[in-house]
Amino acid sequence: VNTAIDNLHRLAARTTGTLSLAGGLPMASLFPRRLLGLAGLEASLETSGAALQYGWPEGNEELRRWIAGELQRRGAAVAHDDVIVTTGAQQALALTVEVLPEVKRSIAVEPETYPGALDLFQRKTALANDPRYAGVSYVVPGVGNPSGLDLTPFERDSLLSTGRFIIADEAYAELRFDGRVGRPLFADAPTRVFHVGTFSKTLCPGLRIGWLVAPTRFRQALLSAKRAADLQAPTLGQDMIERLLQRLDWSEHLAHARSTYARRVERLMHAVRRHLPGFAFREPEGGYNLFVTSDDPELDELDVLEQATKLGTSFDPGRLFRRDEAPLVFAMRLSSCNVPEESMDEAIRRLARAVSMSRRERRSGPRSRPTRAATP
Amino acid sequence: VNTAIDNLHRLAARTTGTLSLAGGLPMASLFPRRLLGLAGLEASLETSGAALQYGWPEGNEELRRWIAGELQRRGAAVAHDDVIVTTGAQQALALTVEVLPEVKRSIAVEPETYPGALDLFQRKTALANDPRYAGVSYVVPGVGNPSGLDLTPFERDSLLSTGRFIIADEAYAELRFDGRVGRPLFADAPTRVFHVGTFSKTLCPGLRIGWLVAPTRFRQALLSAKRAADLQAPTLGQDMIERLLQRLDWSEHLAHARSTYARRVERLMHAVRRHLPGFAFREPEGGYNLFVTSDDPELDELDVLEQATKLGTSFDPGRLFRRDEAPLVFAMRLSSCNVPEESMDEAIRRLARAVSMSRRERRSGPRSRPTRAATP
Repeated sequence: VNTAIDNLHRLAARTTGTLSLAGGLPMASLFPRRLLGLAGLEASLETSGAALQYGWPEGNEELRRWIAGELQRRGAAVAHDDVIVTTGAQQALALTVEVLPEVKRSIAVEPETYPGALDLFQRKTALANDPRYAGVSYVVPGVGNPSGLDLTPFERDSLLSTGRFIIADEAYAELRFDGRVGRPLFADAPTRVFHVGTFSKTLCPGLRIGWLVAPTRFRQALLSAKRAADLQAPTLGQDMIERLLQRLDWSEHLAHARSTYARRVERLMHAVRRHLPGFAFREPEGGYNLFVTSDDPELDELDVLEQATKLGTSFDPGRLFRRDEAPLVFAMRLSSCNVPEESMDEAIRRLARAVSMSRRERRSGPRSRPTRAATP
Repeated sequence: VNTAIDNLHRLAARTTGTLSLAGGLPMASLFPRRLLGLAGLEASLETSGAALQYGWPEGNEELRRWIAGELQRRGAAVAHDDVIVTTGAQQALALTVEVLPEVKRSIAVEPETYPGALDLFQRKTALANDPRYAGVSYVVPGVGNPSGLDLTPFERDSLLSTGRFIIADEAYAELRFDGRVGRPLFADAPTRVFHVGTFSKTLCPGLRIGWLVAPTRFRQALLSAKRAADLQAPTLGQDMIERLLQRLDWSEHLAHARSTYARRVERLMHAVRRHLPGFAFREPEGGYNLFVTSDDPELDELDVLEQATKLGTSFDPGRLFRRDEAPLVFAMRLSSCNVPEESMDEAIRRLARAVSMSRRERRSGPRSRPTRAATP
C-alpha cells in the first residue's frame, strides 16, 4: 500500500497544475536563499578547503555551540560537547535506535506519528501493544506530527513519570505559532531523554543537518554508530549554516516563518470548513500541516488519493502515520506549503470533489481497480 | 587503542606546524573551489528552492544518469535507475550490510583494508576466519586501501569464481596513476556484486555524495533502508555536483589529480627510501597514500605515533587497517596530501626520528606511559 501511495505522490509531483497538499516539505519561499547562496560561495572559496573536506563525526564545533546555545535559551543545561550533528533528524532517530538496548524490547508511539519513525521502528524493533511494557517511548513534543499539537502538561508529566527512556523528536517544536517554544523534554530528564532536532523545518531540508543530544553515557556509542553509518554530517552544509547564522536574525526569521505558516494553516482550516463540512480537525498549535479525519466508513484513503491525483491535488493518507495494524479511520494530513495562498480554496475544492467521487463509485457497486492491482 | 589513536590524531590536527601524514583526506588544493562555489550560489538562488528542499531517497535523476554514464564508459551495463545516491561511500557500505542476508554469516576482508569498513563489519557481523566459509567478500578493487594496489587478474578471477556476494568498494579506483580505470567489478557479475563509489576522493568529501549500484532484486530493500537511515542524500550537494559537471572537464580534472598525486607519492617514496631505509613498501598504482611496513619486532605503532606527534608529524597506524585479532606487524599509512611538497622530506625525517626515539626508549627498559594510561 505504501508503494501505491508513493507512486501516486510521484505521479502528482510530475503533473503540472497539481495543487498538492501532500508532503512534509517546508515552504521554499521561506528559505533564505540569497544568504544561503552567499554562505555556500564563501565557504567553498575559502583557501583551506575546510568546508569541502572531511570533518569530525560529532560535527563542527561552532555549529554545536550554536545549537547548545539555543537549547540553553529554552531552559536546558547542555554543553556543545553534548550535541552530535547528524545527517538530518531521521539519522538522529536511527542512531538512537542503534545504541539504546531498551529499544529492542519495543517502542511505544502515539496513535498517529511521524512516518519516518514508524518505518524505522518497524524495521528495527517492535511497536509496543501496551505502552506500559515498552522499553522506550517515542514522542513529538512541542508541535506534534501530524497533529500540530503539543503534549498536554498531563501527558508530559505522565510520560516523564514512567521512568522509561524517551526519544523526543522536536523537529517542528520551534514552529509554534505563539512563539512560546518551551523547555525541551530532555531538560526535565537528561539521563533518559534523547533529544532530536533539525534545521529541516526552520531553515531548509536540503542540507540534511539535524542534531542529537543524548544522555552522556551513550555519547561514545553514538559517535561510533555515526562513524559506521556515514562518517559525518555534510561539512559544507554545517559550514553554510554557521556562516548564515552570523548574518541572519534567527529569531526574526523564525517569527516570519511562524506567522506565515499560521496564516496559511488558518486559510486551510477555513477552506476545509467550507468544502469538507463533514470532516473534523483540531486546530494546530504550530507547524504547517492540518490533520483532518472523517468517520464515514465508506471512505477509503487510497481510493480518495487516486481520485484526488486525477483531479489535480494530493495529500498524505492517514495510514502513513499509523502502525500497520491500526484500525483505519479515514484521515488526511494536508500541508499548507505547496499551494499558492490564493489557490488553497481551489485545492480543497478538488479534494472535496475527490471525496464525493470516491463515495459515488463505492456506492455504484463492486469496484474494478486496475491501477491498484498493477501496484506491487 | 583506537581512542588513543583518535586522540593523538586530534592533537596533531590542533598543533600548528605539524606536518601530518595521517588521514585519508584528499588534497584541498585540488577541489574546484571556484566552480563549486558558483554551483552552490546558483543552486541556492534558484527560485524554486529545489536544491534546498527534500528530494527522493534514490537521489537526483540527472546525477544518477551521469554516474551511470561513467560506469557505462568503464564497460558496465547499467541504467540510471540502478544507481542509488548515498550519503558518502560509507553509507553505501552500511546499507549493503543491512539488506544482504549473507552478510550475517561473516564477511571476508583482505589482510589490510579500509578502516570504516572494518568498523562497520565488526559492529554488524563477524569477519571470516576462513574466507571459504564467508557469506560475502569485501574488496577494494582498482586502487586498494591502504595498499594503493589493484587486485591482480588472478585475484579478481578467483574472487568472481567463488560465486559469493561481493562488496566492491571502488572509492579510489578512478585515481589510478596510469588513468586506466578498468571495468568495475560488478560488470562481470551484476547479480552478485554491490558496487560502491564516491565523489569524496575525486572531487571533495565535504558534500558527502557517494553511490551504490546493487543487484536489481535488492533495490527496493535498499531504498527502504536508505529512507530509514536518513531519508535521502543531501539535495544541495547533488545539485552542486550536477551543475559543476556541466562546466568542469571531468577527464581533465581527473588527469590533473592523478598526475599531482603520482608526483607526490613519488616524492614520498623517495623520502622514505632515504630516511627510513629499513622500511618496506610496494609502489602504489594509484591514490595518494603509501603503506610502509617494518619487521622490526621492537617497534610499536602507538608508541611511534606518540613520538611522531611530539615531533610534529602524524600517520595512520597499520592496526587501523587490520581486524582486531590480526598479528601486529609494524605498519604506517602515509598520506601525501597534507604536507607541502617541499616539506615532505622534513615530514619523513621527523617520522624517522620518532622511530629511532621509540626504539631507544624501548631499549632503555620497561616503559612508563602516562599518556596511554590516561586514555580510556
